[in-house]
Amino acid sequence: MTEPDVPARRPSEVAVDARLSRRALLGAAAAGTAGFVVGGIAGPLVTRWPPDAPEPADGASTPPAVHPFFGAHQAGVTTAVQEHLHFAAFDMRERTDRRDLVSLLRDWSYAAARMTQGLQVSPSGALGGDPEAPPDDTGEALGLAASGLTVTIGLGAGLFERDGIDRFGIAAARPSQLEPLPPFVGDALQSAWSDGDLGIQVCADDPQVAVHAVRNLSRIAAERAAIRWSQTGFGRASSTTAGQPTPRNLMGFKDGTGNVPVEDRAVVDQHVWVPPSSAPGWLSGGTYLVVRKIEMLIDDWDREPLTSQQAIFGRTKGSGAPLSGGEEFTAPDFATRVDGAFAIDRAAHVRLAHPSNTGGMRILRRGYNYVDGTDTHGRLKAGLLFIAYQRSPAQFIAVQRALATDLLNDYIRHIGSAVFVLPPGASEGGFVGETLLG
Amino acid sequence: MTEPDVPARRPSEVAVDARLSRRALLGAAAAGTAGFVVGGIAGPLVTRWPPDAPEPADGASTPPAVHPFFGAHQAGVTTAVQEHLHFAAFDMRERTDRRDLVSLLRDWSYAAARMTQGLQVSPSGALGGDPEAPPDDTGEALGLAASGLTVTIGLGAGLFERDGIDRFGIAAARPSQLEPLPPFVGDALQSAWSDGDLGIQVCADDPQVAVHAVRNLSRIAAERAAIRWSQTGFGRASSTTAGQPTPRNLMGFKDGTGNVPVEDRAVVDQHVWVPPSSAPGWLSGGTYLVVRKIEMLIDDWDREPLTSQQAIFGRTKGSGAPLSGGEEFTAPDFATRVDGAFAIDRAAHVRLAHPSNTGGMRILRRGYNYVDGTDTHGRLKAGLLFIAYQRSPAQFIAVQRALATDLLNDYIRHIGSAVFVLPPGASEGGFVGETLLG
Repeated sequence: MTEPDVPARRPSEVAVDARLSRRALLGAAAAGTAGFVVGGIAGPLVTRWPPDAPEPADGASTPPAVHPFFGAHQAGVTTAVQEHLHFAAFDMRERTDRRDLVSLLRDWSYAAARMTQGLQVSPSGALGGDPEAPPDDTGEALGLAASGLTVTIGLGAGLFERDGIDRFGIAAARPSQLEPLPPFVGDALQSAWSDGDLGIQVCADDPQVAVHAVRNLSRIAAERAAIRWSQTGFGRASSTTAGQPTPRNLMGFKDGTGNVPVEDRAVVDQHVWVPPSSAPGWLSGGTYLVVRKIEMLIDDWDREPLTSQQAIFGRTKGSGAPLSGGEEFTAPDFATRVDGAFAIDRAAHVRLAHPSNTGGMRILRRGYNYVDGTDTHGRLKAGLLFIAYQRSPAQFIAVQRALATDLLNDYIRHIGSAVFVLPPGASEGGFVGETLLG
Repeated sequence: MTEPDVPARRPSEVAVDARLSRRALLGAAAAGTAGFVVGGIAGPLVTRWPPDAPEPADGASTPPAVHPFFGAHQAGVTTAVQEHLHFAAFDMRERTDRRDLVSLLRDWSYAAARMTQGLQVSPSGALGGDPEAPPDDTGEALGLAASGLTVTIGLGAGLFERDGIDRFGIAAARPSQLEPLPPFVGDALQSAWSDGDLGIQVCADDPQVAVHAVRNLSRIAAERAAIRWSQTGFGRASSTTAGQPTPRNLMGFKDGTGNVPVEDRAVVDQHVWVPPSSAPGWLSGGTYLVVRKIEMLIDDWDREPLTSQQAIFGRTKGSGAPLSGGEEFTAPDFATRVDGAFAIDRAAHVRLAHPSNTGGMRILRRGYNYVDGTDTHGRLKAGLLFIAYQRSPAQFIAVQRALATDLLNDYIRHIGSAVFVLPPGASEGGFVGETLLG
C-alpha cells in the first residue's frame, strides 16, 4: 500500500490489503495456477483459497444491508428485493474447457463474496498492488457501501451440451428439466435478449454498486466468457417480502401481491428449492431461474379506460384489491358475480395466473421495471424484466401456458427469454458450482 | 371520487380531488379552450389557471425532499443533485403553432408543479374522473413520495427558427447566443442522441418517479410534441452541493471536485444565471443547458495502469487529490515538478479544464452515469450524460476547446449533443416560458 490516500470501502479492507499485496498474488500465480488475462495482466485473481474471509458486516442490523454470499442457498432468490438490478448473460468463449469454467466460477465466487461484503474485487483492489499494472478493481464503487448487493449465478443449458458437444464434460450431469422453454402464445423473442451459457443476477440498493459488480465480473471473465446480453432495471416491480409495500409496474398496477411469501419456509421449500431427494444430487438446494424481457406497449395501454385496465388485471389500480372485493391481500373470489357477470373476467390476469388455474403451480417472482430510452417514433422502450424462481421450469411453463388467453397479452410482448439452473449456495470459501464441478 | 380505495400520493391530494373532478375539467374544456388529445380524450388538462396551488411539503425538512417548482429560477440547476435522471428531448410536431407551444408549456408547467410536490399529474389523476376514460395519470408513481423531483424545461434553437421558418413567432426574441455548438475535436455525434426543439431534465431520488414524470409529460404533449431522444442515468456523477460526497464516474474517478459551488450565490450569479442587464430581457434569471452524451471506452480504460489513469486525470484515483499534492479540495498547483517533470501533465484533464486554462470560463456540471446494456461484442455501452449550466454557451465552448488535447479524449467519445436555453422560473401559477410567450 504505497498510495497515501486509499479510501477503503470499509475499515477492515485496510487490514486485508496489508496482509496480501498484489505482488504476492502475482508471485503465487507464477508458482503454478492456470493463468488468464485480467486487464492485460496474466495471472489468476484467486491464489489463496479459501479467500481471506469476507468480513461480517459492522453491525448486522445497520443499513445498508450486507447479505452473506456463502450458505445453503444462493442469495438473491429469497433475499428481500433490492431497488436495482443488473442482469447479465454470458457465453463461454471458443476453445474454453472445463478448467476455464471451474476457474471462472471460482474467480466469480471469490470476487462476489468480497463485493457483497462491501469489499473491492480483490485485496489490492482499485488502488493497491503494482501501480504500473491495471488495477484489479475498476473503482467506481470506492466509498460505496455493500448496498445489499447479491450476486446470483446460474448455468444455461448450452453449458452442458451445445450442438451435441460436451464442451465442459458435464453433459452427464445435466438436469433433465434444463431445456429451452417451449414456444408460448405471443412470443416475439429476439436472440439479442435471450439465452446464455451463464446468467448472473446482480441486485443492489445502489445502481452504481450493481453496475460495478457486473462490469468487474465481466472483466474477470476476460478470455473465458463474454457478456451476451445485459439489462439494468429498477423499482422492485415484484415484492417478495411482507415488510415491503408492493411496488408498481409501468402499467401502474401493483405487481407481486400474490407472490410466493418468502417468509414461509415451507412454501418456499415446496415451490422454489430443489429438494435433496431430486436427481441430480448436485442440484439439491438449488433452483431454476427463468428470465423474460417483457416489452410493454405503453401507448396502447395508456389509451385504455381505467375500467378496462382494471378488468384486464382483475384488480383495482388503486389498492390492488381483487375486483371481487376486499383489500389488496384479500383472496380473489372468482365466482363472485356483479349484474350476472363475473366480477373477475374469465380472461383476467389474476384469474389465469392464480394457482387454481395452473394446477397449483407457483413461481417466486422478482421483477424489475426497465426503460431503454426511446424508439424512433418517440415511444419509451419500457417494460418489465421478469424473473421467476421455481424448483422446476415446469412451474413457469404451466403458469405461462395458463396465460395464453390473458387479456394482458394485447399490451405486452415477450422479447427475451432464458433459463438457468442455479446451483446451491457455495460452502464457506467454496464456489458456486462446486457440487457439480468441484 | 367513486373509487373507495384511492391511495392519495399525499393526504392533501384527496382534498384537491374533491374540489375538482375530471368531469368538471371536461366541462370547462368544452366551454372553449383549445382542445387536444390526451390519451384519446379530447380536452386540455389545464382548465383552471392558476392551478389549485401545489401544496407545500408536509414539513419541509423531512426527507424525502420536495422542491418548489415556481420561483425566480427553475429548479434542477442549483438544486442538490438527485440520484437519478431521465432526460428527454422533444420535437414539436408538424403543423403546430404558437398556440400549441404556449398550451404545451402551460400544461407541462401545471403537471410539473403538481408532480414535484408529490401529487398526481392532475386532480383526477390515475384513479379519479370518468372511469370509462383513460386516466390522466399513468399511476406508476402512486404511493411514492415527491422524491426530490425537479422538472427543468429548456428551449432549443429550432424552436425559434428552423430552415428559415419562424414556426412559433418567436424568431425575433431568439438570444443571439443560442446557436448550434461548433464542432469539437473528437466529436462523433449521432443525430439520434442530439438536438431537440425542447429539452426536459427530470431528476429525482427514485428512478420510478423520474420515469413517471417523463412518461406523463410525453403523454401530455400528445399531438403537440414527441420525444426525439431520451436517456436515463444514475449516480450523481457530478456533485454540486458541499454536503454531498463527490460521486465517481464510471472511470472510477471522483467527478465534480472543482465544480461551481452552488452555495456561493455570487459565483453562481457570475457564471450561471443570465443577469437582468442582458438581452433579451425575457431571459433574465435563465441559463443555458448543454448536454453531451459521452460514451466511455471502458475496455481500453480498464487496461490502463493506475499511474496512467491518474496522469490522465491529474488526480489520484483514491482521494481525488491533485497530483501536485494535498487532499481532494486542495487547489492543483500546475507548476509543481517531480524529478523535473510536471506533477500534473501538460495534457492532464484537471489542468486543461481549470479556469486558469479556459480564460476564467466556468460551467456548473450535473452529470449522470449511464449504462445502455451491452453491444454485440459484449462490451458495456456506458458513459456519462454530461450536463452543464452556464449563462452563455460561450463558457462551455471555451472549456470544451481547452480540452482539445486532453489525454482523456482517447477513452471517451461524444456521441450526443444539444443546447437549450432555460427561461427563468415560472411565477406562482404561471408557466415556464411566460416571459417569452405570456
